[in-house]
Order: sequence, then C-alpha cells, then structure tokens
Amino acid sequence: MASSAGKPKWRRVQHQAPYCVPPSHRIFTERNKMVTKDIQLRELFRNTEKYAGKEVVVRGWVRQNRNSNKFGFINLNDGTFFQPVQIVYEADKLDNFEEVAKAPLSSALLIKGTMLMTPDAKQPFEIHAEEVTMEADSAADYPLQNKRHSMEFLREIAHLRPRSNTFAAVFRVRSLVAYAIHKFFQERDFVYVHTPIITGSDAEGAGEMFQVTTLDMKNPPLTEDGKIDYSQDFFGKETNLTVSGQLEAEIFALAFRNVYTFGPTFRAENSNTARHASEFWMIEPEIAFADLDNDMQVAEDMVKYIINYVLENAPEEMEFFNKFVDKGLLDRLHHVVNSDFDRVPYTKAVEILQKADKEFQYPVEWGIDLQTEHERYLTEEVFKKPIFVTDYPKDIKAFYMRLNDDGKTVAACDMLVPDVGEIIGGSQREERMDVLQARMKEMGLNEKDYWWYLELRKYGGVKHAGYGLGFERMIMYVTGMSNIRDVLPFPRTPKTSEF
Amino acid sequence: MASSAGKPKWRRVQHQAPYCVPPSHRIFTERNKMVTKDIQLRELFRNTEKYAGKEVVVRGWVRQNRNSNKFGFINLNDGTFFQPVQIVYEADKLDNFEEVAKAPLSSALLIKGTMLMTPDAKQPFEIHAEEVTMEADSAADYPLQNKRHSMEFLREIAHLRPRSNTFAAVFRVRSLVAYAIHKFFQERDFVYVHTPIITGSDAEGAGEMFQVTTLDMKNPPLTEDGKIDYSQDFFGKETNLTVSGQLEAEIFALAFRNVYTFGPTFRAENSNTARHASEFWMIEPEIAFADLDNDMQVAEDMVKYIINYVLENAPEEMEFFNKFVDKGLLDRLHHVVNSDFDRVPYTKAVEILQKADKEFQYPVEWGIDLQTEHERYLTEEVFKKPIFVTDYPKDIKAFYMRLNDDGKTVAACDMLVPDVGEIIGGSQREERMDVLQARMKEMGLNEKDYWWYLELRKYGGVKHAGYGLGFERMIMYVTGMSNIRDVLPFPRTPKTSEF
Repeated sequence: MASSAGKPKWRRVQHQAPYCVPPSHRIFTERNKMVTKDIQLRELFRNTEKYAGKEVVVRGWVRQNRNSNKFGFINLNDGTFFQPVQIVYEADKLDNFEEVAKAPLSSALLIKGTMLMTPDAKQPFEIHAEEVTMEADSAADYPLQNKRHSMEFLREIAHLRPRSNTFAAVFRVRSLVAYAIHKFFQERDFVYVHTPIITGSDAEGAGEMFQVTTLDMKNPPLTEDGKIDYSQDFFGKETNLTVSGQLEAEIFALAFRNVYTFGPTFRAENSNTARHASEFWMIEPEIAFADLDNDMQVAEDMVKYIINYVLENAPEEMEFFNKFVDKGLLDRLHHVVNSDFDRVPYTKAVEILQKADKEFQYPVEWGIDLQTEHERYLTEEVFKKPIFVTDYPKDIKAFYMRLNDDGKTVAACDMLVPDVGEIIGGSQREERMDVLQARMKEMGLNEKDYWWYLELRKYGGVKHAGYGLGFERMIMYVTGMSNIRDVLPFPRTPKTSEF
Repeated sequence: MASSAGKPKWRRVQHQAPYCVPPSHRIFTERNKMVTKDIQLRELFRNTEKYAGKEVVVRGWVRQNRNSNKFGFINLNDGTFFQPVQIVYEADKLDNFEEVAKAPLSSALLIKGTMLMTPDAKQPFEIHAEEVTMEADSAADYPLQNKRHSMEFLREIAHLRPRSNTFAAVFRVRSLVAYAIHKFFQERDFVYVHTPIITGSDAEGAGEMFQVTTLDMKNPPLTEDGKIDYSQDFFGKETNLTVSGQLEAEIFALAFRNVYTFGPTFRAENSNTARHASEFWMIEPEIAFADLDNDMQVAEDMVKYIINYVLENAPEEMEFFNKFVDKGLLDRLHHVVNSDFDRVPYTKAVEILQKADKEFQYPVEWGIDLQTEHERYLTEEVFKKPIFVTDYPKDIKAFYMRLNDDGKTVAACDMLVPDVGEIIGGSQREERMDVLQARMKEMGLNEKDYWWYLELRKYGGVKHAGYGLGFERMIMYVTGMSNIRDVLPFPRTPKTSEF
C-alpha cells in the first residue's frame, strides 16, 4: 500500500474541524499524529536503483541482530519480500545504540537511514541507520529461534511458523497459485461460482461427511418412531459439509457455458496420510459443449499457466524450494511447461504396467483402481512427465461420468504428475437422461435426491465436462513440500483443529 | 476457450496409434469425431468487425423462436454474453426447417451460417443459418417460460434461474466482483490466506454457530459426568463453522504485513431478513504497521476499485440493472467513485441524529448501536455518499478493538453506503497485552482459549488494523438487488438448504 516516492516525509496532519478527517492517499498515517511515509521492502528490493544513495524509512521485524560495542547488523524483514534487508547501525550515530543492540528476535523497529549499494556483498544493498525507533518488543522465550526446527514442532506453533523462511515461501506461493487460477479462468471469461458449503446432497454418492447441526446433541428432538427429528434442525433436514461443488457447477455451466468453482471441501475420513486433510480447497471448472478432450486441454493449459505464473512472480521463493526442499524442482517444472502431456487410456496403462519389469505391491489387472505406485511408475519411469489416464472402468468411477460406447468404461481422466500422483480428476458428464437413470439405479441412488440434477438433462442438457483440482496437491507439486499439513495455513486432520 | 479465427473449420481427427491422442490446441473437439471450431458469442459481440460477412459456427440455447412457414428467428444464447444473437433461418435453405421451427425454449443448437451486420436493427448483427444441428432437446414443461416470474418462484428453481436475464447478470457481476477483489489485493502484493472453516475458536466471542460433528446424534458417547464426550468426536473436541477468519488473519499480517482472506462464513441466527444469510462470503484484509486511518483508506480504495472494475467489464449487465432493477444505480455508482468518503466519529454522528428534523423509531442517545434507519439517514440525507462512522463506544464492540485514549471508545469504523447500510466493519486491533487482557476479563473471555492470539502481542505485536467486507452486501450494492437470497447462487437460510 505504502509509498513509492524516494524521500521519506514527516509531517503533521491537522485534525480538521468539525468531523472530517481528510483521506491522506497512499500515506501510512498514525491517527492525528506523525505521518511516516515508509517504504515496504518489496518495493525496495524490486526498485533498488531508485532508492540507491537516498534516505529511506523502513519497518519490520528483527530476524537477526549481531553486534560489537561499536556497531551492529540487523536482518530486518517486513514480510513483503522473501529476503531480509541488512541494517547497519553504529554507536557513534545512534542515541539509543544500547537499546537497539539488545533488540530481540521478532521485535519490531522503524528505521530511518541511507540505502547504500553493496556490489561486493551477498546482499545487494544495506541501510545505514540514522534513527531507530522500537515499535514492538518481543519476549526472550520466542519459540522460533534461528535454528533448525522439525516440521512437527512448527505445526504446533502455526501462529508463528509463517515467519520462518520455509513457510513464508509456502504461503506466498499458495497465495500466488490461487490468484493464477482465478486469472487463468477470468482471462478466458469463465464465471466463478460459489457452490454451497452446507448441503443436503452428497455429490459423489460416497465419502464420509461432517454433519452440520444446531440441535442439542445431548437432548435431540425425536420423531414418533424414535429417530432424530431433523425437521427441527436449523435447515429443517439433515445437512452436511460439501464434498464437491460439481453438481451445482453443472447448473451454472448449462447457463454460462464456462464456469469454475474455488472453495473449501471436506472429507471426514479418519486417514492420517501426508496427502489427505479433512478440510481442503478445490477448483472445479465445468464446461458446456465440451467433451473429454476439451476438458483435458483446459486442465493442461491451466497447470502450465500456474507454473509459469509462480516461476515469474516468486523467483526467490522458488529458488529457495529448489535449494532446500526439493533439489531438481525447477528443472522438473521447466520441463513440464515445455511438454505436451501424454494421454493414455486406462486399458493401455494396465497393459504397460503388466509388462513392466517391476514388482508392484498391488498386482495389476483390468478393473482395479490404480495405486500410487502404479501412477508413479507411469509418470516417473514410462512417460517422465504429467499424463492423463483416460477411460476408466465404470465400476470404479462415479455415477455421473459418461458411459463410453464399449459399455464398460467411462469418459473419465486423471492427471498424474511425477512425485505427487493424481492432482486432477475429471470426466465428461452423462448428459443422456436414460443412461444416467439406469446408472443411478445400478448404484442404488434415489432419483428424488437428484431431481434438479436430472432436470438439467431434460431442458437443454448438452454435453459437458469438467474436472476437480486439489488445490493443496497443486501447491505440493509446485513447492516440493511433501506433507499436506505444511501447505495448509491451519490444517484440519483427525484430532487436530487448533487455531 | 474456443476459437479466434474467422472461418469455421471442419476436419476429421485421426485417432493416433497406439495410445496418444494429440492435444488439439484451442479447438473444441468431439472425441475422435468431427472437429468444430465454434465461436463463443462473447467473442462475436466484442469483435464484430472481425466476423462481419464471414461464415461462423455458434452454439447455444434457444431463448426465443418465432416463425412463419417460410422463415423464422431464433434468439440464441450460449451464456458467454449477456445479449443473445439473432439467428435467421429459411425454409428454402434448411433441409430440417420444420425441426428447427419447432426447436423449443432451452433446446440447444449448433448453427453454421453467415454473420451479417444490421445497422438499422436493434441488434448489431444477425446470423443467417445455412446448417442447423440439434444438440439437445428440451421438454415442453420448461419452467422458465418467457414471462415475468416472481423472485420467490425463481428461488425454487435455482437450478434454472441463472438462465434468466436477471440472474445471468447477477452471477456474472458476482464473479467479476470476486475477481476485482483478488486483483485489487494481489496488485498491492497482499497475501491471500485461507483461514480455517472448521474451528474450535469463536472469533467474536458471540454469535450463534453451527456445530460440526461426526458423532452419532442418536447415541453420542458421554463422559462420566454425563456430558457429551467430545474427545471422541472427529477432531477430539467440540468444533463449529467459522464466523470470521480475522483472528487467524492477524497471525498472517504479523508475518507478511499485508494479507487478506476471502472465504465462506456462517451464522446460525434464526433471522429471516433480506440482508442476512446463514452462509455468506467475507473478505477480511489485515494490515500490520497500520492504524485506523490506513485501514479506512484501503477500504475506500477497494470499494472504488470494485465499482470501476464492474462498470468497465460488465457494461451490458450494469445497464440492465440500471434499467430494470434499480433506476439511478449508475448515477449513484459514478458519484461514489468520484467522491472522497466522509469520516464522522460516532459521538458526532449521534449529535447529528439528535438534532435531525426527523422522527426515528429507535431514539438516539450516546451508547446505542446505530440502527439501519439511523445509518440510512446519515448516508442518504446528510452526507449523500458513503461514510465511515468511527470510534464507537467500546461496550457495543468486540474485545479485540483498540481502546482509544478517552477510555470509552474504540478505534472502530463502519462503512455505510446509501440504500444498503453497513457493508464494511473494521478496527485497529488492540496490540497492548495488558489492555487486551483487561478487556477480555471484562467481557468474561477465557485467556486459555486465546493463547496464540495473546502470544501475537508478546512477540513483535506491532499495531495493526483490518476490516471485514460482506461480499453479498457488496453485490447488492453494485447491482441494486434488494434481497441477499438473489445474489447467492444457492442461498442457505433458516429451513432452506435445497440444491
């Protein structure tokens, strides 16, 4: 928000009578007091030439403070840029040198000083302090000391871990990926739809769900035959947290042609793996007048767009991941944006796996759901890039996927990526009323629960297709982070809902 | 997604052996069959010159079909553009004239024809059909016939209402406003944070919440003293749906300086008003090193940015609202983007209201919470533009708001806009540990429940401020729609959770 001009300005704002405080555009004020035009570090790092040799005012938190009794160095970070700025301070110049020398880790300072380029040093420039003001103190027992911490410990201090290098990088990249996704779809005039979080329907016809209620758990009202009387619950019926917005997205695709969702989804599965969370975010585009080929093309374009966006907009963070989290990450991502993704029908994939010179834990035969070991073998050893596996057996897929002419497979696709496995699952939707009804009957679904979904087929139900992208899986893929708990700001998993 | 070139291309794709279907970039394919390069209507309307006189292929749904036995006119809409395109078809040119003449409302067609400019007609151009293919039929009992429907009826067919003019306009604008908000913050390098939906904390220390559980409602496990044993619930404790992400956003502001949330929030209040929903979306920016003045400036800039973005990117929809939903809307919005919002302290606002030559239903005295009638009087009759009311009595505001030096008021602000009332509520946060603790004690809050929130004040807790924007209220404001149920795709209100 702040400042773009070079010279800091200090001035007094007059509180104007009788009640109108004039907006002071683009200036970080303090109410009716001094006005400090400070410069955010991102601005300073991105436009160093502009500020070189000039007087600047910066604010931030102490990330390191080393000193002798004559001078000292502070690494200061205000959170707007991945790297800290080096502050040089001297006893000769500061009245409060001793106070500054004691400024503890995570205390906050306001610094007025001169920015000097340092072509021979590691950092591009440093600021020589002329005035230092303490803005906030920090206690000596600050848990995030400058040493290596385990990921488990950092999860316990989720209120402080965004201040560490790793999580500063993860959560900025998370934000950029989210924006890249919106940008990708909005540039293509897709309409963003907020599908409901609380729902009476169950999109997949499967999956354990969280119940949402305002009934008194201790004394719930009962019906005459002794069941819970949900007519007295808040919504007048039993409701759950959504597992997918797809069915509702289809409503919008059949009105706007191109739409997408981006919202939280929930699974009440009691599974403790590095790839599953109980609350996660999902993106579900849905496209009318489209078949599976179109669908895969959009998915491929989107993945490349996201990677390019992050490489361009978070070079420092991506460099950090490549160096400290996942060596080879950048090579892999560059390779992906320059490849055409391969497409292999499930039946062919099974043949490849059966012929493979490799012992799998789960034996492969036509009809099984592919396991992570199979998926990884295909992407990492056979194709060496992301692939779509298409046309899965209908028995292992959802009721709404379009039946192929062979009567055995459906027009589904999974995008598999090296190291992570599945990040996208999509399909062409069954638009033929009779086929859909037969399929629902086969799977024991009640048509009444899907009355509006069926009506979409009755009134102009053109072919359409869509997919779901697991947002956190995408973040794991582009950062190299290996546990979903470390790409979610406040992960929810079995027995864990702190913060 | 589709097409930009002028001439439609029909060609046969070879299914390549053995398993690689080549990506057919930017071409809407049908799997292994004909490839149709169709043109979306938005492209056609935005670049008419490019296509004038050329052969084009379009797809869409029938919105109107009038004909004689010689020729006919179809209004076709594919959802990508607010206006439909007029298709002219003639018995002399079409083999299937009779079939086309009978194409019912909401059936879908693929049309190949020539685009002709019509400078003397209402619509800018029309397409003279050479080939028409039925893509999907529609039943005669289609509920959304071309006549006036009540809003109540349209809510009952929420799976079809996005196809009506009003809701096509509302939901495209909703999508654009969402994107404008992301764009505003991302251009300023704010980090987007996903704060948790399922939570053990209650941000406001008030407000009725939805409980989230996987316990068996009928036979919940009990503790020895007969209470519900939440240690056996999914998260090992009692959890609810979030009412605000602010407290968690503060965590991120104290790491990244500038952050924002954008996610669903929930209130289990049994209130049936035109301004309240049980599930709604909220945007909560949080800014470190900022005071209330900075906070209000960001809020004002954001509101103007949103309005400008929508005026630029949805001119047809905004024209429609101005004409059919809220006459005067455009004038009002143009006025807002060209005004500086006024700022009036609560104490002064009370004086103005007390002196007002107007009888209020709720009498005004210092200490009361302002009612909608008071807010509307201030914005509509006194200031005639959006205003911030600031520095409210502490007793009517939340525990986390910063106590002013007078000891009676807090550094809070509400943005009030004409016709809608409050759309933003913000405050500078109490960063002083001792003051915060005293305030929490006063309000009967347990420090243990807020251990991490308090720790933020212990370790570099600089001044910071933020606000919450009710997303749906903003949509109501920019569209002139008067009921929150009509700006939510699938509204959740007491006893209502269909779809």
